[in-house]
Amino acid sequence: MTAVTPALGEHELALHDRARAVIPGGMYGHMAVTSFSAAHPQFIVSGDGCRVTDADGREYLDLMSGWGPVVLGHRHPGVTAAVIDQLGHGDCLDGASPVAVDFAELLVDTVPSADWAMFCKNGTDATTTCVTTARAATGKRKVLVARGAYHGAVPWCSLRGAGVTDEDQAHLVHYDYNDLSSAEAAAAEAGDDLAAILVCPMRHDVKRDQELVDPAFARGLRALADRTGSVLIVDDVRCGFRLDLGGSWEPLGVRPDLTAWSKAIANGQALGAVTGIEALRDAARSIYVTGSFWYAAVPLAAGLATLTELRKGRALPDMVRTGQRLRDGLAQQAVAHGFEIRQTGPVQMPMLSFAGDEGFRLVTAWAEAAGERGVYLHPWHNWFLSAAHTDADIDDILDRTNDAFAALG
Amino acid sequence: MTAVTPALGEHELALHDRARAVIPGGMYGHMAVTSFSAAHPQFIVSGDGCRVTDADGREYLDLMSGWGPVVLGHRHPGVTAAVIDQLGHGDCLDGASPVAVDFAELLVDTVPSADWAMFCKNGTDATTTCVTTARAATGKRKVLVARGAYHGAVPWCSLRGAGVTDEDQAHLVHYDYNDLSSAEAAAAEAGDDLAAILVCPMRHDVKRDQELVDPAFARGLRALADRTGSVLIVDDVRCGFRLDLGGSWEPLGVRPDLTAWSKAIANGQALGAVTGIEALRDAARSIYVTGSFWYAAVPLAAGLATLTELRKGRALPDMVRTGQRLRDGLAQQAVAHGFEIRQTGPVQMPMLSFAGDEGFRLVTAWAEAAGERGVYLHPWHNWFLSAAHTDADIDDILDRTNDAFAALG
Repeated sequence: MTAVTPALGEHELALHDRARAVIPGGMYGHMAVTSFSAAHPQFIVSGDGCRVTDADGREYLDLMSGWGPVVLGHRHPGVTAAVIDQLGHGDCLDGASPVAVDFAELLVDTVPSADWAMFCKNGTDATTTCVTTARAATGKRKVLVARGAYHGAVPWCSLRGAGVTDEDQAHLVHYDYNDLSSAEAAAAEAGDDLAAILVCPMRHDVKRDQELVDPAFARGLRALADRTGSVLIVDDVRCGFRLDLGGSWEPLGVRPDLTAWSKAIANGQALGAVTGIEALRDAARSIYVTGSFWYAAVPLAAGLATLTELRKGRALPDMVRTGQRLRDGLAQQAVAHGFEIRQTGPVQMPMLSFAGDEGFRLVTAWAEAAGERGVYLHPWHNWFLSAAHTDADIDDILDRTNDAFAALG
Repeated sequence: MTAVTPALGEHELALHDRARAVIPGGMYGHMAVTSFSAAHPQFIVSGDGCRVTDADGREYLDLMSGWGPVVLGHRHPGVTAAVIDQLGHGDCLDGASPVAVDFAELLVDTVPSADWAMFCKNGTDATTTCVTTARAATGKRKVLVARGAYHGAVPWCSLRGAGVTDEDQAHLVHYDYNDLSSAEAAAAEAGDDLAAILVCPMRHDVKRDQELVDPAFARGLRALADRTGSVLIVDDVRCGFRLDLGGSWEPLGVRPDLTAWSKAIANGQALGAVTGIEALRDAARSIYVTGSFWYAAVPLAAGLATLTELRKGRALPDMVRTGQRLRDGLAQQAVAHGFEIRQTGPVQMPMLSFAGDEGFRLVTAWAEAAGERGVYLHPWHNWFLSAAHTDADIDDILDRTNDAFAALG
């Protein structure tokens, strides 16, 4: 039996009070812990490999990896060394650093659909730049997006209504993920005003099981874009650099015209990127996009170090092996404890749900029980493995999740 | 006489070739050097205090300060120490770091109009969050913006047309900066659908002389917002933390409802912030905005160190003193060389133009001549002093600009 700790420690609770005074709701966005748990700490003080520590000194085995960015593990020595080395030269300078060229070259060398790259800060910067480029290239306006898909949290793509006007999303036309006929119907609705088809490499909407892409659907979208002269944009912000370094649809042989990257690109440093095909280079050049920190050298140096490490070829197979070990273990535990669960998505981006679990009550109780036993995972958002997880770490996690299943009984 | 170097060195030129192959146009956005100079280096390798060095080892006295963010000087020891210390704990974690609370508290303590703060990455994140919050608070849609004002480079506020649809800007209503009657007319046009008045603390549009705000205009906008029940948003992204730590309109006694911050907030680390009044806390909480790196601890630690240093009270007066020294010196040089120039904006955010200089030909030639003599400044975008500039640095700059004026003769 793993130890069970009271839900929240005194330092955490003191921080809650302070935060509520100076931050709306005490925190916001996907990291507002009150939106998914009464037992998870809102504040994390440090991270090391696949472990994080809260304000009360409690250590958690980390299955969120900073919600995706930390693909090599927290404070990866190679990336940290690159960051500190670059800090010794400079970060936000008057012009781009040569490391921007180094990293653009490495991306172009790594990603078969990339003839060029541009850098930014957020995943939303990247998806917005893709859509703007596609509109500039085609002179058209409509963008097909999957119903419920997350492409960022700004008005043009927000899934929430507060503060968003109808006009912000006037040129989005919706289809259903993995339903090619719905995409074709959306394209027909867009008619001769179709600029782009925007799609995630798999369906990873929150609060529902993940769904891998049907290869025929991916090929069908590629053909639809070719037939209509529109731009196929893959939003690889969440999956990028965890499924295939060449792009998440590369194993299917489906190459996008534009790809949006962020999250794992620099192991946690703030960086996004857009890559594209030669035919869209002039359009990318024609639009005006920029940001004060888009050219900063330190995150680019971190990206260079991260991708260099990933290209050594061990990190992704390691995540697949440990992810499979986790999935197999959780499946056995669920059976042993008499629960019917579903585990969906690629094993290195796990998601677990309980059958018939209305309102996510059971999975939330299980996630909180896991949290109390020192495993940080999420009840209705996918998790992320990192290359820092070892088989022994997974076994340690499984000891604790087993007790969490038992606690539900 | 200062030495004159050939316009571009061999390493710089080699980087140009490599960049053109893998980055559209060889670079993009405001740092695309081809948009403003044939003689400035595109690539900067390092920075130290108020000096930057290009790929060929040429050192420049820096008057751009990373285009604003570097308010304390490149590689400021205190900020760098805070960054490296935080890197030793963690950066992109599963929850926010307590440093987010520390920094929110410090902002609220520093900015009289701030009852709360939220953090993001880009200036554009901050302006977008302000507008979204205002719409959520009021349930209305129209936003007054000054004609030609820069609030970011995404479709809703972009000043360029490529890739932007009419609907993206459907709810913007334009007024002229410092013309209260035009703002009142715009408000009348918005009628009962007015959500917000968005305004920069001074007029700093590119390619025109800067213009300080008329205090009566600022007070008039405040009254207009109050009368119409709309939200007054000050976009302090560019001026913030260089004019007044409490907000750039604090010396006028005009307090915004929402303020967008970025650039100088963390001395070059990627960070933005929104601060707001108590009455807008619930609206800020109601919107969904987020980003993968918005909660990252390292930039917040840099922000905390930067604002702590600024609050010691020496940096801003120092920049005013050195900025005045630069302005006085340039004025004398222009007279001595027989040129009629205008110097506009606050002395710590200088801008220089030549009278009757069609197409910016003269100022571009002068800026390039300064560049060849080791001063990095811009022909038609404002410059930025930092606290790292000493009187001796200014005198060194003036020696070189004097030669640049002479070279025009």
